[in-house]
Amino acid sequence: MNRGRLEAFSDGVLAIIITIMVLELKVPAGDTLAALAPMRSAFLAYVLSFVYVGIYWNNHHHLVHTVKQVSGPIMWANLHLLFWLSLFPVVTAWAGNNPQAAWPSAIYGVVLLAAAIGYLILQRTIIRHGGGALDRIIGSDPKGRISPLLYLSGIGLAFVRPWISELLYALVAAIWLVPDRRIERALSAKE
Amino acid sequence: MNRGRLEAFSDGVLAIIITIMVLELKVPAGDTLAALAPMRSAFLAYVLSFVYVGIYWNNHHHLVHTVKQVSGPIMWANLHLLFWLSLFPVVTAWAGNNPQAAWPSAIYGVVLLAAAIGYLILQRTIIRHGGGALDRIIGSDPKGRISPLLYLSGIGLAFVRPWISELLYALVAAIWLVPDRRIERALSAKE
Amino acid sequence: MNRGRLEAFSDGVLAIIITIMVLELKVPAGDTLAALAPMRSAFLAYVLSFVYVGIYWNNHHHLVHTVKQVSGPIMWANLHLLFWLSLFPVVTAWAGNNPQAAWPSAIYGVVLLAAAIGYLILQRTIIRHGGGALDRIIGSDPKGRISPLLYLSGIGLAFVRPWISELLYALVAAIWLVPDRRIERALSAKE
Amino acid sequence: MNRGRLEAFSDGVLAIIITIMVLELKVPAGDTLAALAPMRSAFLAYVLSFVYVGIYWNNHHHLVHTVKQVSGPIMWANLHLLFWLSLFPVVTAWAGNNPQAAWPSAIYGVVLLAAAIGYLILQRTIIRHGGGALDRIIGSDPKGRISPLLYLSGIGLAFVRPWISELLYALVAAIWLVPDRRIERALSAKE
Repeated sequence: MNRGRLEAFSDGVLAIIITIMVLELKVPAGDTLAALAPMRSAFLAYVLSFVYVGIYWNNHHHLVHTVKQVSGPIMWANLHLLFWLSLFPVVTAWAGNNPQAAWPSAIYGVVLLAAAIGYLILQRTIIRHGGGALDRIIGSDPKGRISPLLYLSGIGLAFVRPWISELLYALVAAIWLVPDRRIERALSAKE
Repeated sequence: MNRGRLEAFSDGVLAIIITIMVLELKVPAGDTLAALAPMRSAFLAYVLSFVYVGIYWNNHHHLVHTVKQVSGPIMWANLHLLFWLSLFPVVTAWAGNNPQAAWPSAIYGVVLLAAAIGYLILQRTIIRHGGGALDRIIGSDPKGRISPLLYLSGIGLAFVRPWISELLYALVAAIWLVPDRRIERALSAKE
Repeated sequence: MNRGRLEAFSDGVLAIIITIMVLELKVPAGDTLAALAPMRSAFLAYVLSFVYVGIYWNNHHHLVHTVKQVSGPIMWANLHLLFWLSLFPVVTAWAGNNPQAAWPSAIYGVVLLAAAIGYLILQRTIIRHGGGALDRIIGSDPKGRISPLLYLSGIGLAFVRPWISELLYALVAAIWLVPDRRIERALSAKE
Repeated sequence: MNRGRLEAFSDGVLAIIITIMVLELKVPAGDTLAALAPMRSAFLAYVLSFVYVGIYWNNHHHLVHTVKQVSGPIMWANLHLLFWLSLFPVVTAWAGNNPQAAWPSAIYGVVLLAAAIGYLILQRTIIRHGGGALDRIIGSDPKGRISPLLYLSGIGLAFVRPWISELLYALVAAIWLVPDRRIERALSAKE
């Protein structure tokens, strides 16, 4: 299997995830501005998850770009990442509809954490199967290291104040918003 | 990241948006012709939004075709545009189910306006990052200038008569229905 | 715009239509075999529409394969066809849930007819814009001529017995099941 | 029609199936951890079906990779496979929501069996239409032979204890989790 098909399938799944999340934004029940008010937190959760999927799509591209031959382990590590990302719509809706509850915010964080671990596993798998270049490029990977800690804090703090954990999740998104320029530079240097 | 993947992802998202909008057309409750009657305005709203997504898909193609290297800002300007387009299904259903109410029509206009601004931002971003050719081609861009004004009028007039604002939105669609031939010509002249 | 993107977008929309139709097959309410019984006609309608989308996908490929340059009219004729195909999920569910009612069967036929006309328009548009080869290949086009008549009969006969019209729709599908070998042969002869 | 388009369409349909399955995971009704408890079996069913679609996607790639020219029979054998896979979301949800009932588990197995038969038919069709290489590569095909037997046992045992049949379905998934290395090796040996 070549890289192109892995990219095409992943792009397809990510495009669908980012789009079906909007199906969880239910059409308002009334026809007044007041009918929109209860959607506020669901909308904010949608924005945050949209940004997250955008970040994963962007970094996924940079990451997979370093792969030469797609082996079985890489394919399954990729599907494992997509699995956790596929849960974004349901946990986004749950957290968005229950902004003041601890568990929805905590479970949202658990899925974010699982996706981050899935990304790290995919990264490791690519390095182990002939991605020597990637290894040097990523280096100490401070973002990849700090994110799980922030997610864990968010999960814990959801039981103190849910809005603190949501702020932490938004902070991680802000940290990642910049694409991984190390890979970008190394690649453009090589080409 | 090359242009092909940006196009493929955007095509995927637009294809999904245009198709899941139909999920908001609920299966009629009865089995008579009368059961279809309440869907009339929802159907018209669906047609209008379908045409809008078609227009965006078409012009997006022409626009992105001028990009040589996809940088981070272009990618995020593109995702920003897709974000507003992803809200089409929910606002289409809200406006379509409440044709006589002011707020749904106004909010529909707000999303149309935001998508138009998102398109202008993407256009500016592409020009700023090495799209000198695009700058000369677009020139004074009368359509891009007049559309936001018409959307704004539509948003305001929704509080007078909702059908006036819907007529204005349909008018903008009619103006844009013709693809941006300036870019098309300039490109075919160059090739 | 080149042919590849028109194909990719159409493939995307058709893949989504064929797949979201299954969302209208509601999860059975009970947990017995008897709970499946009321789904029988919805399932049969799903099978028929699945075959129809498969036929359109297949013939669409053969048709678009003859296009060299995608002009504005071709793009909009294509979107017009996709519009009617996008209504398949909702009319399939309506007809499938009301197998003994006249109007759902008739409206299902109207959408089939509109899609067939949309296909003919796309065919004409491609011929008019430089598809001289296609013109000779299609020739008298007996299938394209007889289908609308059968759909019209089906729409009318829905008011006598809905199952007659559904039988007619299935008959048209059977006629079209074989891909348009004329184009296939002509193309393989040329290559 | 060339192989690329068959792959692209199949990838699209599989990407959509794998993603819309999550729409059947309903947003929990409450905001406590207890609200998640009733989702446990639906979640496990989702995981199993996700793995199944992943396996089909992977093996489908290897299989179609051996095709040189897509003929009509191959295209319809492919659509036939996709048809059964498209039923995964609805039977997954039914079995997942009724973990202690016999019929949902049995019907889930019937759809798994039908997809397996659809895959075998596609394999045979490709071999018959010029895939002589594939014939030698597949050889005795022990996995392809044993899976239907295990599905049949699962369907029967659903009426004894549903969890036994679900265990059998998971066992088949485990057997298939490793991609078909015979084709992979033969191809890489040839290239």
